[in-house]
Amino acid sequence: MTEQQELHEVRNPTSVPIAPLLAARWSPRGFDTTHTLSDDELTSVFESARWAPSMSNTQPWRFIVGRRGTETFAKIEASLMAFNQGWTARASALIAFCRTSETDEGKALPFADYDLGQAAAYLTMQAAKLGLSTRQMGGVNLDELTASFGLPEGIAPRSVAALGRFTDDEQALDEKTLATDAAERTRLPLEQLFAVPAE
Amino acid sequence: MTEQQELHEVRNPTSVPIAPLLAARWSPRGFDTTHTLSDDELTSVFESARWAPSMSNTQPWRFIVGRRGTETFAKIEASLMAFNQGWTARASALIAFCRTSETDEGKALPFADYDLGQAAAYLTMQAAKLGLSTRQMGGVNLDELTASFGLPEGIAPRSVAALGRFTDDEQALDEKTLATDAAERTRLPLEQLFAVPAE
Repeated sequence: MTEQQELHEVRNPTSVPIAPLLAARWSPRGFDTTHTLSDDELTSVFESARWAPSMSNTQPWRFIVGRRGTETFAKIEASLMAFNQGWTARASALIAFCRTSETDEGKALPFADYDLGQAAAYLTMQAAKLGLSTRQMGGVNLDELTASFGLPEGIAPRSVAALGRFTDDEQALDEKTLATDAAERTRLPLEQLFAVPAE
Repeated sequence: MTEQQELHEVRNPTSVPIAPLLAARWSPRGFDTTHTLSDDELTSVFESARWAPSMSNTQPWRFIVGRRGTETFAKIEASLMAFNQGWTARASALIAFCRTSETDEGKALPFADYDLGQAAAYLTMQAAKLGLSTRQMGGVNLDELTASFGLPEGIAPRSVAALGRFTDDEQALDEKTLATDAAERTRLPLEQLFAVPAE
């Protein structure tokens, strides 16, 4: 286990042990600008998303990815709400998660959002395996994103993720980013998540 | 790596290496009725789902789970479309994934389905860590599920997952289950998943 993972685990107080990769995952804003995403890293995170499950294997996910310094990165960043700009500039890549509106045969995809969420989760897990982190955002101007990439009618962006290597380097980060990343992680108690008692 | 994982990995031809837990995951129908889900196993898969990310940490997921032989299992099973009954009877547990319709403050949850998909993915990953498999289903009579559990208005079931230990035991399984589980797993080529070329 890397030092980074140990740090994460301490901040993730699970009530019973879970897989270290899962226990270590969280969504930081502090990214390390000395990290660049290699071609293999880029391919492997999308390869992981590719193998996510989906309704009748419809695979309703499409991706846009740009590494820091590229035109694609700049276009995705420009579509973010103001509160998501700034810290995102340090990410190694920005990813737009898009969904398809129907199958090639014109069938509806009632699970497209659900399955897109699964693909995002699988991408995040592989990122964690590489020692990288993601932070997903819903605060995105989706119309602007659609227009700036000239996306066809059947492909709709839904969310954006920042991907990169976490840092809490006080020299490199602003106070707000350091403070939000240092905040305690919270979740509802497990008992409250069961709609009826588990049997 | 367990024998089971090795088997899975062979059936999951990724184009670049990804985390074994991710590479090994798939959605079988053949479950082993000699496996029962322990309390710790049950808790850990939901603990993993609990720590999934969600929009503004809204955690719009609620769960119903019943182990084989319980009334909850029978009620969930009764809500499944006919083509999902039969093989599901062998699962160690059936899980209904439900979403909340709004926050406690009455705010809309545009990412509830997306985030529910993420929670399902995290649950599946922890199941894989335990050597277990899930198979999710959209073929569910959701109104029946809502009625049979008397779910309140703000909680809506979206999907059901079977959870258990995979088997391909020819003595225990019917031909159809064996055949569908032996079918090649397929995905769209990675290149086709990029809405614009990766940069």
